[in-house]
Amino acid sequence: MRRRAVVLLSGGLDSYTAAAVAARDGFDLYALSIDYGQRHARELDAAARVAAALGVARHIQIALDLTRFGGSALTSDSPVPRDRALDAADIPITYVPARNTIFLSLSLAWAEVLEADTLVIGVNALDYSGYPDCRPEFIEAFERLAALATKAGVEGHALKVSAPLLHLSKAAIITLGTSLGLDYALTHSCYDPTPDGSPCGHCDSCRLRAAGFADAGLPDPLLR
Amino acid sequence: MRRRAVVLLSGGLDSYTAAAVAARDGFDLYALSIDYGQRHARELDAAARVAAALGVARHIQIALDLTRFGGSALTSDSPVPRDRALDAADIPITYVPARNTIFLSLSLAWAEVLEADTLVIGVNALDYSGYPDCRPEFIEAFERLAALATKAGVEGHALKVSAPLLHLSKAAIITLGTSLGLDYALTHSCYDPTPDGSPCGHCDSCRLRAAGFADAGLPDPLLR
Repeated sequence: MRRRAVVLLSGGLDSYTAAAVAARDGFDLYALSIDYGQRHARELDAAARVAAALGVARHIQIALDLTRFGGSALTSDSPVPRDRALDAADIPITYVPARNTIFLSLSLAWAEVLEADTLVIGVNALDYSGYPDCRPEFIEAFERLAALATKAGVEGHALKVSAPLLHLSKAAIITLGTSLGLDYALTHSCYDPTPDGSPCGHCDSCRLRAAGFADAGLPDPLLR
Repeated sequence: MRRRAVVLLSGGLDSYTAAAVAARDGFDLYALSIDYGQRHARELDAAARVAAALGVARHIQIALDLTRFGGSALTSDSPVPRDRALDAADIPITYVPARNTIFLSLSLAWAEVLEADTLVIGVNALDYSGYPDCRPEFIEAFERLAALATKAGVEGHALKVSAPLLHLSKAAIITLGTSLGLDYALTHSCYDPTPDGSPCGHCDSCRLRAAGFADAGLPDPLLR
């Protein structure tokens, strides 16, 4: 049997690229997307397009209403910051409390059932917008937890959390994905799209994406 | 401001007792229950009764359909084992993959928004039915993860995972709760209740409960 990986697929370009790296490395992909009440729910359509393009073995979308907790501009009516200094040290209001912990936990549950030995997440530490749960030490701590949390772990089959973009800049991610033949026109990055779905161009996510394409010397196919 | 604790409340007697210990220790309680597609969804009614009896500041019930992943008799049509040897070394089919990891992650999200400094979970290691995510080392690993996963952690306010029943037997839990004045008639434990909601008397959960009341020398008010 080929090795299986559960891949968190948001519909953005990072998770698409991370999934493509796992596919290149020989994994069968099981893609998981979460409808968490995000204001940019349009990214879930992108996740479905990306999953199809990757030829995943299965794609599940799970509903989990994180708006019940609030605490983020992505899950409430609080405005998304526009043209914020991207090198600010503070954690921005677009941070969703414990999001990656929750998403990795859900991946872990599915991985246990599938007997998958790897979770794939597209976090990156360089352009990570200041979110605590995108740091290398967070990923390592989750891997340690997973070894203790599961039946497979108890039986000695430790699960690996693969974050192949962890130390890459946005430009390096785009260059890598382009070399793998990815079509970034399928993706969606904007936190606060216009009613017709166009990127706002002013949120952190739009601006990190634009800077990444510019630094990679490539045009963003979404803006053609 | 009084200290706040987010308490996972299943409707069973363990989480009720753990919550009562936190209330005794001076915390304001924020109770979280998860409708995860469990076959014994009746426990959610018990969770609401228990939350009211505890006088919690708030009770949220979140829907998260873990039947999508399958892999457990509690979230599928697989039969719940009857009269299983409770000292068997294997992990039983009622184990729900990664359940406590997921539930603690959700508590963590809410705790971050509430600025609560403690998560309370009613796991216990002696009568734990062989579930890996009820062990002390799992709880410690989650606490380490939480310190890295959150804004509060980054700012130096580590969050504590309180598992006050961790080393207690079921009988000791029942004795403790009784001393705190708890009414266990409000709770529900059975994994596989009859259509009218009566406990089956044969699943692990019923049998651990019965043995606990017997060892405590107390009658189970549910069976009166």
